[in-house]
Amino acid sequence: MSGLLGSVKGPHDVKRLAVEELPRLAGEIRDLLVDSCARFGGHLGPNLGVVELTIALHRVFDSPRDPVIWDTGHQAYVHKVLTGRAAGFEALKQEGGLSGYPSQAESEHDFVENSHASTALSYADGLAKAFKLRGEHDRTVVAVIGDGALTGGMAWEALNNIAAIKDLPVVIVVNDNGRSYSPTIGGLASHLSSLRMNRRYEDVLEYVKEKLGNVPVLYDALHGFKKGVKDVLAPQVMFEDLGLKYVGPIDGHDEQAMEAALRKARAFRGPVIVHALTQKGRGYTPAENHDEDQFHSPGAFDRATGEERPKGRIWTNVFSEELVRLGKERDDLVAITAAMLHPTGLNAFADAFPDRIYDVGIAEQHALTSAAGLALGGLHPVVAVYATFLNRAFDQLLMDVALHRLPVTVVLDRAGVTGDDGASHNGMWDLSILQVVPGLRIAVPRDGDRLAELLREAVDVSDGPTVVRFPKGPVAEPLEAVGKLGEMDVLRAEPDAEPHVLLVGVGPMAHACMDAAVLLQAQGIPATVVDPRWVKPLDEALVLAARAHKLVAVVEDNGRVGGVGDAVARLLRDADVDVPVRTFGVPQEFLDHAKRAAILGRVGLTGQDLARQITEVVAKRTSPAEPLRR
Amino acid sequence: MSGLLGSVKGPHDVKRLAVEELPRLAGEIRDLLVDSCARFGGHLGPNLGVVELTIALHRVFDSPRDPVIWDTGHQAYVHKVLTGRAAGFEALKQEGGLSGYPSQAESEHDFVENSHASTALSYADGLAKAFKLRGEHDRTVVAVIGDGALTGGMAWEALNNIAAIKDLPVVIVVNDNGRSYSPTIGGLASHLSSLRMNRRYEDVLEYVKEKLGNVPVLYDALHGFKKGVKDVLAPQVMFEDLGLKYVGPIDGHDEQAMEAALRKARAFRGPVIVHALTQKGRGYTPAENHDEDQFHSPGAFDRATGEERPKGRIWTNVFSEELVRLGKERDDLVAITAAMLHPTGLNAFADAFPDRIYDVGIAEQHALTSAAGLALGGLHPVVAVYATFLNRAFDQLLMDVALHRLPVTVVLDRAGVTGDDGASHNGMWDLSILQVVPGLRIAVPRDGDRLAELLREAVDVSDGPTVVRFPKGPVAEPLEAVGKLGEMDVLRAEPDAEPHVLLVGVGPMAHACMDAAVLLQAQGIPATVVDPRWVKPLDEALVLAARAHKLVAVVEDNGRVGGVGDAVARLLRDADVDVPVRTFGVPQEFLDHAKRAAILGRVGLTGQDLARQITEVVAKRTSPAEPLRR
Repeated sequence: MSGLLGSVKGPHDVKRLAVEELPRLAGEIRDLLVDSCARFGGHLGPNLGVVELTIALHRVFDSPRDPVIWDTGHQAYVHKVLTGRAAGFEALKQEGGLSGYPSQAESEHDFVENSHASTALSYADGLAKAFKLRGEHDRTVVAVIGDGALTGGMAWEALNNIAAIKDLPVVIVVNDNGRSYSPTIGGLASHLSSLRMNRRYEDVLEYVKEKLGNVPVLYDALHGFKKGVKDVLAPQVMFEDLGLKYVGPIDGHDEQAMEAALRKARAFRGPVIVHALTQKGRGYTPAENHDEDQFHSPGAFDRATGEERPKGRIWTNVFSEELVRLGKERDDLVAITAAMLHPTGLNAFADAFPDRIYDVGIAEQHALTSAAGLALGGLHPVVAVYATFLNRAFDQLLMDVALHRLPVTVVLDRAGVTGDDGASHNGMWDLSILQVVPGLRIAVPRDGDRLAELLREAVDVSDGPTVVRFPKGPVAEPLEAVGKLGEMDVLRAEPDAEPHVLLVGVGPMAHACMDAAVLLQAQGIPATVVDPRWVKPLDEALVLAARAHKLVAVVEDNGRVGGVGDAVARLLRDADVDVPVRTFGVPQEFLDHAKRAAILGRVGLTGQDLARQITEVVAKRTSPAEPLRR
Repeated sequence: MSGLLGSVKGPHDVKRLAVEELPRLAGEIRDLLVDSCARFGGHLGPNLGVVELTIALHRVFDSPRDPVIWDTGHQAYVHKVLTGRAAGFEALKQEGGLSGYPSQAESEHDFVENSHASTALSYADGLAKAFKLRGEHDRTVVAVIGDGALTGGMAWEALNNIAAIKDLPVVIVVNDNGRSYSPTIGGLASHLSSLRMNRRYEDVLEYVKEKLGNVPVLYDALHGFKKGVKDVLAPQVMFEDLGLKYVGPIDGHDEQAMEAALRKARAFRGPVIVHALTQKGRGYTPAENHDEDQFHSPGAFDRATGEERPKGRIWTNVFSEELVRLGKERDDLVAITAAMLHPTGLNAFADAFPDRIYDVGIAEQHALTSAAGLALGGLHPVVAVYATFLNRAFDQLLMDVALHRLPVTVVLDRAGVTGDDGASHNGMWDLSILQVVPGLRIAVPRDGDRLAELLREAVDVSDGPTVVRFPKGPVAEPLEAVGKLGEMDVLRAEPDAEPHVLLVGVGPMAHACMDAAVLLQAQGIPATVVDPRWVKPLDEALVLAARAHKLVAVVEDNGRVGGVGDAVARLLRDADVDVPVRTFGVPQEFLDHAKRAAILGRVGLTGQDLARQITEVVAKRTSPAEPLRR
């Protein structure tokens, strides 16, 4: 690493730099980020927005003694650079390389690895309480939270608690770029934008300067001013009225202004909000000018032009197009997104039916229960969300939607192994936890044609909730059925041989099962392959099919605990059919980041791996020591 | 039903009453509620507080055309009385009788059956959007939410969304009794109490009257007043600054004042907050004077004195006492409750260690992630929560606690079948969804001694989270082990006979297994009974034990989908041990309210039922058609 970055091994080096050197440091950091993200993809936009803010944090606070928690962790790239990991950007998000999120294994400066939004203030609350109880009164906890993450209910729960303890030294930096994933909406956003007065960054600063002479506006001056006009009967809670001191708004790209505000906040020894106005994509023209999301998280792109490499057709496209088709046929279809209009493909539906789309902010809980309300009101809502984020709304799906048997369709994108974004982005939980929801039906399409078909079937269900789940990435090639068994598709049958193994391929894993069947056949183990299409409830035809085989193998792109494999085994047990079952899925552990294909290979979910493992089971069961049983 | 209540068959009758008759109606309602709750137990305190408020609602709005949503549903008793269900209080919460929550099956006036807090505003948001889209512009949606429920993040998510649509006719009645379960805490509460100025109800009204001449203070007057002093740079978001009109505070026991405020709110055709000050337990002296929680939800009591019938020793007592003991031994133990200090038994810990207890409000998400922060800071938090409410924080337990391998102990009270409070209070989900959490350990004690012992073991775990779960009600009698098998307790062995069935009794179900074993023995089917104590991870000794039996039966007080039964079956499959397994648990459906014992009997979880079912399986398997296999 050359330049100033070459000399920055940690926060102490950032503190040692002369103020005049800081713009150069910021420039070098931006250069590194653009270069790395152009090669590997990554959360470029958010990180370009926090360069000066992060430099100021590390000059004012003493990390890791003063923990800095990022909400979400995708805005921690600059923090990584300044804590000795600049070289790691040579292999950002690559297997064995730097994680795209904070990582305890990488650095003592990283506390929180989870990528789900709106959590930082709760961690900060707990950390600060622990320090207080342990008598470590000189430590400060810093949480950096975006305006988008503030729309999540957890953040409000935490604010409510932090505010209750007047001497809890928590500095909350609100990184307000007004856009989170895309322009933040809702009442909170209107308020924040009334602080901005205008979405355009320069105009806001202009306004603030004109109004108050200079920035930063520090809390004591402002506070004194407001105190005089406060009406005790007025319902003014937020921030100050919750009991939180407030500093701002600050120009988040004025490093010295940020430093001054943070020093003041640090000295206060109680909860303080520092409101920083930043610009997403700052300093890289293609990002600044990118209307959709300022390069929130592009794939690899051409550095000179900002053009992303073509991705090909992905599962999301199929969903996006089919939903528009369905929306034309049925005017009771409405759609909900939790601040992910473009990533979930709902933007096409929004363009076609602007009055039938609801973006609720980063608020999955509200998304599901608001959907319950829409359904109670006679509509059929489609909630599109990444699989991993549905965990946030499990209770709402169970108690608000399913308990009332409401026709809500939840579409889970990025289900199964996603890969690059690490443990907390994998959607390997849904097929397990959703099994317990009474009356819920779950469809898992194996290819694009089936996705369109099953989505249509799902929104046709009127007496309870449905889920359709599919993975990240290129949509799988069509795989046609050779027959039907109840509602299941038979993908391969061996009419001339007595079949030995029944392979149940869940969704996209049907392809691996087909590969495995060819290899098994070559070893004299005839295999049938079925795709149940709907994995909850399972088709009773599966019981008949199982009886006709000596072994049942279930393969799913989901944690192997509690998933479809367990459900198949239970179905057979309950029918007193004790044909041996073996279940193949993702190991029930937090997976390190790597490409989806690499992970599937590592965990034994390729055709070759499956064939090998099944052959071993068959061999063991046919060995003299343990005779094969039907 | 005699008196005025005899003539009230529905809201239209409430509207027809003369104003002078309303105090008598209120008196009759209170009388009915006190009488019914004295006999059956119930949420008396909250309902005594909303008598006038509910009368006013049904005089102003046109239910069910204007849906009224209660948050939580436990404050809907008066609503039930006024919508034709007064007679049902003869069998409140009894099997086949009136539910303790709204119920769609009972009345078209009931929309939401779920008892989990902070959801009403999201339902209201969805319902109002549906009406708007369908062109039903004359309908208004009313949500009644307590000050406690407002501390839940979901409520904030919903406020943020409702506020964003200026012409969404949603009337939000904040039922502010300042106490929810017990005095509401946090920054929000401080603000609400600044509106009250004082916790004592009379003083607040005094203050308001003196300050403003009379109540209600209506929003347009107040709004005009405040507009003039508003500073655009001030961080004033809550309610009005979120874009919500505000009416209040109103004396919630002045029926005519409430009516006037609600009529004004209804006429507005946009989102409005009506802030009502009420007194929990109003009109029944023992409740008004009850310091702990104003008879929030007592069991049966003596009407004259308010004295509750003695309950005997319950599971909660054992936990409560043992935690204090542990707290004395270890000063790094801290405890967290989500607004349930007394119901969870944490009050004893709070009394002993006032600086080591955190009541976070109705905020389970924050509870878990704040616990993660406390653990990161070097402490060992114990989070005590009702099992059903942990569903709210599944994502936080998974991604914030478990991903970081943090030593947090979650204690689940009211796990399994709880009964009286209906479908959404049953804690029959945890043993299933928690199976997927990597590194989590789960203990299920079968009796009080084991609860103390396992709690101790749980807080001794330092490299990851633990869960200890136990049911509602009287603690089970001690059941001593006759031997050990790995970490498992052997409760019954048949040394003289070749054992046939291995009964795996999960926690309290060990008792039913012991009963079943006696009955099985009498029929010539020798049975071994083991209690695994820790059900995640399962002890490998179970594989050896299974090999020595012809059938394995797992019994758990949890939904039978994805629970310990499925885990045992998977353990054996993975070890290539294909001994048949049968799993017994709660059917995976929403259960109607009834006593716990009645439900367990109905779903086949008594010793007798188990013995019968297992005998049938054995008979089927030893019949000539299908020879018994080992």
